[in-house]
Amino acid sequence: MKVTVVGAGNVGATCADVLAYREIANEVVLLDIKEGVAEGKSLDIWQKSPINLYDTRTIGSTNDYSKTAGSDVVVITSGLPRKPGMSRDDLIETNAGIVKQVTENVVKHSPDAIIIVVSNPLDVMTYQAHITSEFPRTKVMGMAGILDTARYRAFLAEELNVSPKDIQAVLMGGHGDTMVPLPRYTTVGGIPVTELIDKSKLDEIIERTKFGGGELVKLMGTSAWYAPGSAAAQMVEAIVRDQRRVFPVCVKLDGEYGIDDVYLGVPVILGKNGIEKVIELDLNDDEKKLLEESRNHVKEVMQVLDSKR
Amino acid sequence: MKVTVVGAGNVGATCADVLAYREIANEVVLLDIKEGVAEGKSLDIWQKSPINLYDTRTIGSTNDYSKTAGSDVVVITSGLPRKPGMSRDDLIETNAGIVKQVTENVVKHSPDAIIIVVSNPLDVMTYQAHITSEFPRTKVMGMAGILDTARYRAFLAEELNVSPKDIQAVLMGGHGDTMVPLPRYTTVGGIPVTELIDKSKLDEIIERTKFGGGELVKLMGTSAWYAPGSAAAQMVEAIVRDQRRVFPVCVKLDGEYGIDDVYLGVPVILGKNGIEKVIELDLNDDEKKLLEESRNHVKEVMQVLDSKR
Amino acid sequence: MKVTVVGAGNVGATCADVLAYREIANEVVLLDIKEGVAEGKSLDIWQKSPINLYDTRTIGSTNDYSKTAGSDVVVITSGLPRKPGMSRDDLIETNAGIVKQVTENVVKHSPDAIIIVVSNPLDVMTYQAHITSEFPRTKVMGMAGILDTARYRAFLAEELNVSPKDIQAVLMGGHGDTMVPLPRYTTVGGIPVTELIDKSKLDEIIERTKFGGGELVKLMGTSAWYAPGSAAAQMVEAIVRDQRRVFPVCVKLDGEYGIDDVYLGVPVILGKNGIEKVIELDLNDDEKKLLEESRNHVKEVMQVLDSKR
Amino acid sequence: MKVTVVGAGNVGATCADVLAYREIANEVVLLDIKEGVAEGKSLDIWQKSPINLYDTRTIGSTNDYSKTAGSDVVVITSGLPRKPGMSRDDLIETNAGIVKQVTENVVKHSPDAIIIVVSNPLDVMTYQAHITSEFPRTKVMGMAGILDTARYRAFLAEELNVSPKDIQAVLMGGHGDTMVPLPRYTTVGGIPVTELIDKSKLDEIIERTKFGGGELVKLMGTSAWYAPGSAAAQMVEAIVRDQRRVFPVCVKLDGEYGIDDVYLGVPVILGKNGIEKVIELDLNDDEKKLLEESRNHVKEVMQVLDSKR
Repeated sequence: MKVTVVGAGNVGATCADVLAYREIANEVVLLDIKEGVAEGKSLDIWQKSPINLYDTRTIGSTNDYSKTAGSDVVVITSGLPRKPGMSRDDLIETNAGIVKQVTENVVKHSPDAIIIVVSNPLDVMTYQAHITSEFPRTKVMGMAGILDTARYRAFLAEELNVSPKDIQAVLMGGHGDTMVPLPRYTTVGGIPVTELIDKSKLDEIIERTKFGGGELVKLMGTSAWYAPGSAAAQMVEAIVRDQRRVFPVCVKLDGEYGIDDVYLGVPVILGKNGIEKVIELDLNDDEKKLLEESRNHVKEVMQVLDSKR
Repeated sequence: MKVTVVGAGNVGATCADVLAYREIANEVVLLDIKEGVAEGKSLDIWQKSPINLYDTRTIGSTNDYSKTAGSDVVVITSGLPRKPGMSRDDLIETNAGIVKQVTENVVKHSPDAIIIVVSNPLDVMTYQAHITSEFPRTKVMGMAGILDTARYRAFLAEELNVSPKDIQAVLMGGHGDTMVPLPRYTTVGGIPVTELIDKSKLDEIIERTKFGGGELVKLMGTSAWYAPGSAAAQMVEAIVRDQRRVFPVCVKLDGEYGIDDVYLGVPVILGKNGIEKVIELDLNDDEKKLLEESRNHVKEVMQVLDSKR
Repeated sequence: MKVTVVGAGNVGATCADVLAYREIANEVVLLDIKEGVAEGKSLDIWQKSPINLYDTRTIGSTNDYSKTAGSDVVVITSGLPRKPGMSRDDLIETNAGIVKQVTENVVKHSPDAIIIVVSNPLDVMTYQAHITSEFPRTKVMGMAGILDTARYRAFLAEELNVSPKDIQAVLMGGHGDTMVPLPRYTTVGGIPVTELIDKSKLDEIIERTKFGGGELVKLMGTSAWYAPGSAAAQMVEAIVRDQRRVFPVCVKLDGEYGIDDVYLGVPVILGKNGIEKVIELDLNDDEKKLLEESRNHVKEVMQVLDSKR
Repeated sequence: MKVTVVGAGNVGATCADVLAYREIANEVVLLDIKEGVAEGKSLDIWQKSPINLYDTRTIGSTNDYSKTAGSDVVVITSGLPRKPGMSRDDLIETNAGIVKQVTENVVKHSPDAIIIVVSNPLDVMTYQAHITSEFPRTKVMGMAGILDTARYRAFLAEELNVSPKDIQAVLMGGHGDTMVPLPRYTTVGGIPVTELIDKSKLDEIIERTKFGGGELVKLMGTSAWYAPGSAAAQMVEAIVRDQRRVFPVCVKLDGEYGIDDVYLGVPVILGKNGIEKVIELDLNDDEKKLLEESRNHVKEVMQVLDSKR
C-alpha cells in the first residue's frame, strides 16, 4: 500500500509519522511546496525506524507529484493554518484555491486514490476536493469527527477519571461551533454517559469540545497537530486494512437525514472502498434541529465558494 | 511488577503468554502441579521473546510457591476443566478444594497481591478465594464478564459487519445461563445497537452468548482458552498499569443493586487498587428481575459450598 | 491479504493467533482434518478480537480447501507431532504423504501462493512441497532457522542477563542435530558474542540449542508451539508487508555455498516475492565442513523420500 | 511510574508523545519556560489517547517543578536549538547555565530520579547535570548514541535494501564530528556488515552519519526531533521496564577504556538502576586512537565549562 500526505506542516508530518510507526502503508510520500521541509521530516521519520522498529519507507519531496503516483490513499493537509483571532471562514478563499490545485495534481497521478481532506474550513474544503476530483462521494471525505470526538472523549475521561479507551461518542454536523453534540450517543464501556455525569457538567464539556481547536491555538499560538494528524492516520488505517470502523466522518449527504448535496459530519462505516455506508441515527427533534442549523452554516460557506468559481 | 499465574493449562498459559507479549509485567511466574508442564510452557514463551520482542521473563515451576513470592497480582486458573456434557455446577466441590489450597499458598507468599479468579464455576470460586484469603473485596475478583462481552461483541461485529473494536457492551450477573443481557447498554461507536439490529436477531445473539462456552466445548472437545486467557490478562493490565478501565467484573456486592454478600458480575472501574469503584446502573424492572434471578442462582451454589465447609 | 494455515494443532493455531493479533492479514483461514477443531480455535481467536483489538477475521474449516481460495501465503503445519523418544526421521514417510496431499490442495485453490512449510522433518517436507507444487524455489520455503535462533538468542539473553531484543544470530544447516552454529555471526547490539562470553559456556548453549526441541518435548510430553507458531507468523509478516527481513530460512540451494538441489537453512532476504535473495556468508573451513555434514544428512533423508516415490 | 520531560520544544514534546503512546509511564509531566506551550502540547497529546488508545496522562506546566515531584526518570531537553551555521560548541555557555538551573530544580523535587540529558553539546551538558545533581554516574547519562546509530542503521538499511529492524551497530565517542565509527561492530541479522557492503560505500555512510544532524538542519532550517525524541524515550523505557538493553549511551568513564572522568558514548546495559554496566570492547589500535581523539575533544569542551565555573 502507498499513501501520500500533501502538506508537511505539523499535521501532515504527524500523520506521516503515525502511518510509518504503525506500518499502515509500505510507502508514505510526504509532499510540501516549501523546499526541503518534506525531505527533512521524512528523513527524520525514517531515521526513527531502527528505534521504533517499522519498515515503512517515508519519502519526502518538494512538490514533485510524480513521486506520489499510484497512491491508494491521499491525505490533503495543505492550506494556511488558523492563527489566533482568525476565524475558520477567513481562510476559505485562499485554501480553496490551494486544495483545488493539490487535488488536480493528486487525481493526475493517482486516479484510483481515496482522498481524505484535513484542510480547513474542513467541510467546504472536502466539497472542493470532491468537485475538482470528480470522484464519487464514497472516495472523497473529510477528517473532523474523529478529532472532535477524541477531544470530547478525552475531556470525559478526565472528568470521570476512567480510561479514554472506554469512551465512545458520536458528534455530528460541521467542524466548529455548529458541531452537533449527541449525549444520547456517548457511552462509557456501553453505559450511557448521562447515567454517570450530571447535565451541567456534560454541557460544559460539550462547549469546551466545540472550541477545542481554539483552546489549543490560544495556548500554543498555532493549531494542534498530535490529535489531528493521528485522527487522519486512523482513517487511512481503516481504509487500507479494510477495518470497517464506525467513525464520524465528513461525507457528502445524498438524502440521508433529509439533507442533500452538503458535506457534513455523520457516522459511517469506513473500509477498503472508502465510505462503505452512511449510518442514519434515529435523531430526536432537538438533535434534528441542531443538525439542520449545522447544515445551513456549511451550506452558507459552500455558497461563498460557489459564488467565486 | 511481578504476576503469578496458577495453573498452566491452556487458559493459564495463554494468560502468561499475553502478559509477556504485551510486557504487562517484568516477571511472570507460571505454576502447575503437573511436573514439567509449567516449566515447558514458560520456556517456550520465553523462547518467543527474540521473535516478538518483549523483555518479560517467564518462569515455570511445579508447585513451588516460594517462586511466586511478592507477586503484585495472582491469577488463579486451577481447577478441573469443563468436559462435554458436564454442567458447571458439577465441578463445584472439587474445584473449591483446589482454589482453597491455591489461595492459602498465594496469601502466604504474596500477602499484598490482588487475586483474579478464573476457575469455574466462577462466581463461587471467587467467593471461595475471598473467604480463604480474608482479603477485602476490592482485592479478590473474578474474570467472566470481559470474556462474555467479548463473545457477545464478536457475534455482533460479525452480524453487523463492522470492526469488533467499535462495539462496547455490559453484561451482568453470573457466568453462564443466568447471565443478564443488557441491550440498552450495548453500543457501536456510541450508537445503541438497538438502532442497528432487529430485536429477534439480537435475542438470538444473546442466547448464543449465554451458551458461548458450551459451543466451543462442543467443537473442540475442551474448553476455550484464547479469549479467556486474554481476558484475564486484560484485567491484570488494567491493575498493573492503573488504567481505570470500565469492565464487567465478578465482584462481591455489598448492597449495590440491593444485593448483599454475593459475588456477581457488574461493571466496575479497575485500577491499581483492584476494584476502584462498583458502577451502579439505572436498571429497569425487567433488568432488575433478571439480575435477581442470577443472584439467586449464584446464592444457591454458594450455599452448596457453605454447607460443605 | 489472505493467509491460510493448514493444520490446527498447537503450532498452526498459534500461528493463526499471531497473524490475527498483529493484523498481518485481513483474513486467516485455519484448516484441519479433525472435525470441529479448526472451527473452534478460529472462533476462540475471533472472540479475542474485542479484547486485544484486531480486525483480522479468522475462519475455521474441516478440510474444505475452497475456503482457502486465493490465499497469498499458505503455512503448512500438518503432520504427526514428534513424540518423546521418537526421532525426527521416523516421521518422514507418513508426513511426506500428508504434505504431498495438502500441497496438491493448496496449489489447486491458491496457484499464486507462497508456501511456508513447518511440518517435520522440516528440510525434507519443504522439499516435498516444492516437488509437488512445482513452484519456483523462491516461493516454497521452510521455517526452522528463526525458531532455532530464537532459542539460541533466548539462552544467550538469559546467560548474559541482557534483553533478548538485542541479540542477533545466524544458524545454518538442517533443523536438528546437524544444525550449524556460527558464533562469529552472533552479536549483542552489534558486539560479537565472543567478546562477552567464554567459549565453553557458548559451546554449552549451542549444544542446548541443537536439542532445544527435545528439551521441551521432555518437559511437556509434546512438541513446543509458542515459539514455532510465532516464528512462522513472522515469516508471513515479512512477506505480506514486504519487509525484506534478514532471516535464516530453509531454502533450496542452487549452487550457493557450493551446494546444489538441497533444502537447507541459510540466511536470506524475505519480502513480497518470497526469497528475495540468498545471502552467501564468507564461511571459514570449519564452518564449511559443518555445513557440508548438514547437507549430507539432509540429502540422505531426501533420498529416502526419493526412493519411495 | 512518573516521568518528567523538561523542555517542550520539538524533541521534548516528541519524547513525551512516545512515552504516552507506548504507555511507558502512567504520568508524563512536560515542562517549559514559555507560557502555555507545555500545557498545549500535553493537552494535544492527551486528546490523542482515545484515538491511539493509551492511558498515560500527560500534564503540561509552565516551569512549575512541584508538578514533577517524585519523578522516576527526568529527561532534560532544555537549551537553545542549533541553528544553521552555528557550531555545537557555540551553544555551550548558555546551555550549561540552563542545564544547571534545570538540574537544581529536578534534584529538589525528585531526589531519586535518573536523569537523561539530551541538551547540546551533549557530552558536556551531561557532565554539567552530573556535577550539579551530585548524583552517581549510574544515574546521570546522555542520549546521543541511540540517535547516531539509528541514523547510521537507517542509511545502511537503505543502501542494502533490507529492513532497518535487522541492523545493529555500536558507535562510540562524542556526539558529532569526533564520533567513533565501528564497522567491526555493525551487523545485519548477526552478519558483519563488512561482508555485505564495500569499504568505500561504508566510509561514505559513516561520514554522512557524523554530519547527520547538520544534514537535517540544512533541510528543515531547524534541528531534527522525531528520531532524537524517540531515542530518549527508548532510554526511559529501558529503565522504567528494567529491560537491560544494550545501548550506546553517554556515560562518565571511570577508568574504562583507560579513560577517566569524561562523559563519552560507550555501550552499556541500561536497566532499572540506570547504567547497570559499562561494556568494554576489545578495540584495536585504530579504534583506540579514534576514541582517544574523541575524548580529547570532549575534554577540551569540558575545560571551557570548568573555567567558567
